[in-house]
Amino acid sequence: MTKRKSYKSALQNVDGVNNPKITNKSSISKIQKKRKSQPSADELINAILVGDITALSRAITLIESKNPEHLQKANEVIKKCLPHANKSVRIGITGVPGVGKSTFIESFGKHLTKRGKKVAVLAVDPSSTITKGSILGDKTRMEDLVKDKNAFIRPSPSGDSLGGVARKTRETIILCEAAGFDTIIIETVGVGQSETAVHSMVDFFLLLKLAGAGDELQGMKRGIIEMADAIAINKADGDNLNKANLAKIEFKRALHLYPEKESEWQPKVVLCSAIEKTGIDEIYNLIKEYIDLTKKNNFFQQKRQDQNKFWLLQTIEEQLKNDFFNHPKIKIEIKNQLDLIETNKTTPFAAADYLLQLKRDL
Amino acid sequence: MTKRKSYKSALQNVDGVNNPKITNKSSISKIQKKRKSQPSADELINAILVGDITALSRAITLIESKNPEHLQKANEVIKKCLPHANKSVRIGITGVPGVGKSTFIESFGKHLTKRGKKVAVLAVDPSSTITKGSILGDKTRMEDLVKDKNAFIRPSPSGDSLGGVARKTRETIILCEAAGFDTIIIETVGVGQSETAVHSMVDFFLLLKLAGAGDELQGMKRGIIEMADAIAINKADGDNLNKANLAKIEFKRALHLYPEKESEWQPKVVLCSAIEKTGIDEIYNLIKEYIDLTKKNNFFQQKRQDQNKFWLLQTIEEQLKNDFFNHPKIKIEIKNQLDLIETNKTTPFAAADYLLQLKRDL
Repeated sequence: MTKRKSYKSALQNVDGVNNPKITNKSSISKIQKKRKSQPSADELINAILVGDITALSRAITLIESKNPEHLQKANEVIKKCLPHANKSVRIGITGVPGVGKSTFIESFGKHLTKRGKKVAVLAVDPSSTITKGSILGDKTRMEDLVKDKNAFIRPSPSGDSLGGVARKTRETIILCEAAGFDTIIIETVGVGQSETAVHSMVDFFLLLKLAGAGDELQGMKRGIIEMADAIAINKADGDNLNKANLAKIEFKRALHLYPEKESEWQPKVVLCSAIEKTGIDEIYNLIKEYIDLTKKNNFFQQKRQDQNKFWLLQTIEEQLKNDFFNHPKIKIEIKNQLDLIETNKTTPFAAADYLLQLKRDL
Repeated sequence: MTKRKSYKSALQNVDGVNNPKITNKSSISKIQKKRKSQPSADELINAILVGDITALSRAITLIESKNPEHLQKANEVIKKCLPHANKSVRIGITGVPGVGKSTFIESFGKHLTKRGKKVAVLAVDPSSTITKGSILGDKTRMEDLVKDKNAFIRPSPSGDSLGGVARKTRETIILCEAAGFDTIIIETVGVGQSETAVHSMVDFFLLLKLAGAGDELQGMKRGIIEMADAIAINKADGDNLNKANLAKIEFKRALHLYPEKESEWQPKVVLCSAIEKTGIDEIYNLIKEYIDLTKKNNFFQQKRQDQNKFWLLQTIEEQLKNDFFNHPKIKIEIKNQLDLIETNKTTPFAAADYLLQLKRDL
């Protein structure tokens, strides 16, 4: 711990963030000097491995950078951290805006840190690309957790495609694990494909719902229910309790319509109130139960392997498409070919063959 | 018509298929000579454009060939046929085995030809890759239609991926349309992704169902209901009629849960009995109604354009992946990289970058 603290303060000095009011002239010049000489990859790695949060943050900033030099350094850090990663439980949490994700994560996260866990909270929110905001940007909604020395909260990287955001989050998981975080929570908002992306990087997937007027299943994306290992009906308190109980019955019935999961796990439906802190312990226990089961039947390990393979193939496919469709010549020619297709002068297949050959010859 | 017939008999002589019992010596040598000199692309095109079925069949065989020379000829034929294509109504028909697809298509097809329509029946059945069979292989189940001179039935191409089968079927549609077929029926079996492929090449999508014990929606792939422009509950006859009526109510209710379609068409549920030939006229009329509506609101034309764009992009993406993953060096290296990932020596992303660079340098 002393080692960690000393390194942390050293890095804070470099960063200057936690020392904004330095007036001593020589101190300033020292910081400025240090600022120019960014910590090396090895310095970052050593600091991360002893749990230094500032080093961790800086390394994540490298991952999120657009600067090729930063990315190269990031890759070096990730590679060296890899042997120390993978020893956590990764939990995905999704739910539409208003369901109370932040409050839930605050309660759940505190529950974990009180039990000696080290919790990292990350987010996958590609919509932040457009709004330049982030679902975790407003850390004030996790007031207690943000002050907890055993918790680390990092907003979603922004300014990128879902693929880009997902990659950065996956890499961030590695660094957090290497820094000693044993529980990784990945929040996502119930929009588009981001749930699928998060599902493919976590061990356990929790869906947060609100009790409605009995029409919970209507209009709900079926795919999300299929992915869920548990559904927690939040805000099950006060006047809401009856409705929540009805919703629980309905969801249980809905879950029975699905074929048995490969994990041999029967998805659970629980009630909780993040504000009143009820049901949190039940969720904590069922996740433990799930991890025990899937580690015993080897599904846990198999799933992580499958996820790795998925991300390998996914990344390659995305890059192949990018390389092709973003080529300036192809961009022009694809428009011409579409015109020819519309006027019945070529088929989509002949046009595809033509464009592929064009790219090969470039 | 005379033109067509004379060309047809000429090609039949070339093929020899319809003349198996020729005994005259000089005739045989003539056929053998002709066989060696396959009809040219231009000969095929001219014959197809006057509605010659034998020429059409031979051109489709070229499409399905693995021989690059044949494919080149096929492409020439398709290109020249294109300006004469696109003037049909394309109807997709899906349903699980046992729902009575063949009997339905037989009744429906006859209903169309009696009204002066020319009907081509094709199939997309990638499972025939494995079984080497085909859902339309057993033409005996369409006894009447197969003898109908205004009908053309062609089994699913086999020995290929879904992408390959879909491409060949799309190209076959062009040839059938150029040969004067104004109604194209594409059958698919309710398995895997083939429905999505068929949906993306037809104007109207018909789902055939059977009345069950009131649990029609359970276990049903939601995506298929979403794609359907009409659901026909088949075998609605005799003792089944009551059950069929109940199923109709349930499906109608289910369809109301979906948002309005872009086509502005409200999907219909109808009862039919392919064997007793009831409900067939109703289905025929609602398809006409659909076509009228979507041609007026321009959805028909827009959908075909979107489908063309989809197939262009789809073909390119598939080919990019094939080029990459089927490269011998990549095949070996991908295994090595997966091993490195499993032993925490690299990440899926670093491995992807490595493999992509390797391919670029090849």
